[in-house]
Amino acid sequence: MACIFCDIASGKLPASLVYERDDFLAFLDKKPLFRGHVLLVPRTHVATMTDLPSELAAKIFPVAQAIARAVESAMEAEGSFVAINNRVSQSVPHLHMHIVPRRKGDGLKGFFWPRTKYASGQEMDDVAARIRERI
Amino acid sequence: MACIFCDIASGKLPASLVYERDDFLAFLDKKPLFRGHVLLVPRTHVATMTDLPSELAAKIFPVAQAIARAVESAMEAEGSFVAINNRVSQSVPHLHMHIVPRRKGDGLKGFFWPRTKYASGQEMDDVAARIRERI
Ligand SMILES: [Zn+2]
Ligand SMILES: [Zn+2]
Repeated sequence: MACIFCDIASGKLPASLVYERDDFLAFLDKKPLFRGHVLLVPRTHVATMTDLPSELAAKIFPVAQAIARAVESAMEAEGSFVAINNRVSQSVPHLHMHIVPRRKGDGLKGFFWPRTKYASGQEMDDVAARIRERI
Repeated sequence: MACIFCDIASGKLPASLVYERDDFLAFLDKKPLFRGHVLLVPRTHVATMTDLPSELAAKIFPVAQAIARAVESAMEAEGSFVAINNRVSQSVPHLHMHIVPRRKGDGLKGFFWPRTKYASGQEMDDVAARIRERI
C-alpha cells in the first residue's frame, strides 16, 4: 500500500522538513495556501484523527503548538490557521494537520463559506442531544 | 473583560452543550457551517492555541477525537473538518476548535482557496530552514 507521507517519514521521498522526532514529523506542503504552510504527520500510518492512538493523541497538540509558534514567527505572520480534514477533502489518507500562517487582508475570508442557520432553538437542542449521547 | 465563551463556561450564557467536563466544554456553533458544527473550548480563558498550558495541551486532542467521532456518527457524516483560527479570522478571542461534519458534495471544495506555489526548490528549502530553526 503506497503512501507518500509514509515514504517521506521513512526517507524514501524527499521533503522540506521542518521538524523530525520519534513520533511526528513536519514538512512544507508543496502546494501551500501561503508560503510556510506546514503539514504535521505521525510517523506511523494512521488514516484520520480518530484513528490516532491515545499515546500519540496526547502528544500531537503540544507539537502543533511549537510548530504554529515557529511558523508565525518565521513567516512574520499575524496569526495562523490549523486544520485537519478527515476523509472528505482529505487528499492523502494519512492523518495530517495543516499549519498555515495568516495575515489580515490575506484574501481568506473568516470562514470562507456561507454559514447556515438552525430553524429553531428546539432543532438546535435536538442536534446537541444527538451528539451528546454519543460521546 | 467580557468573553462570551467564558460566560458559557460559567453558565451565565446558555448554549446547546454537547460535552462538559472539568477542563473543557463543547457546544453547538449558532451559525454553523453545517448542522452539528461544534465548538470545543477550554474552560479557562486562553486566547489562542499557543497559549494553552501544557497540561491542557496534552488533553485537548483526545477530547476532540471523541467529539469528532460523535459528530460524524450523530450527523451520519462521511467525514469531518477540524480547525482552529488563531487571531486572524478568530471571531471570539477565546481558543475554540471547530469540529464540523462533512459529506462528499456538500459544497465545500477541497481547500476552498486557490493554492500558491514556491518559485523553486531553493525557496522552499529556505522557508523550511527559517521555520525549523525556530522550533
Ligand atoms: Zn502513510
Ligand atoms: Zn474567555
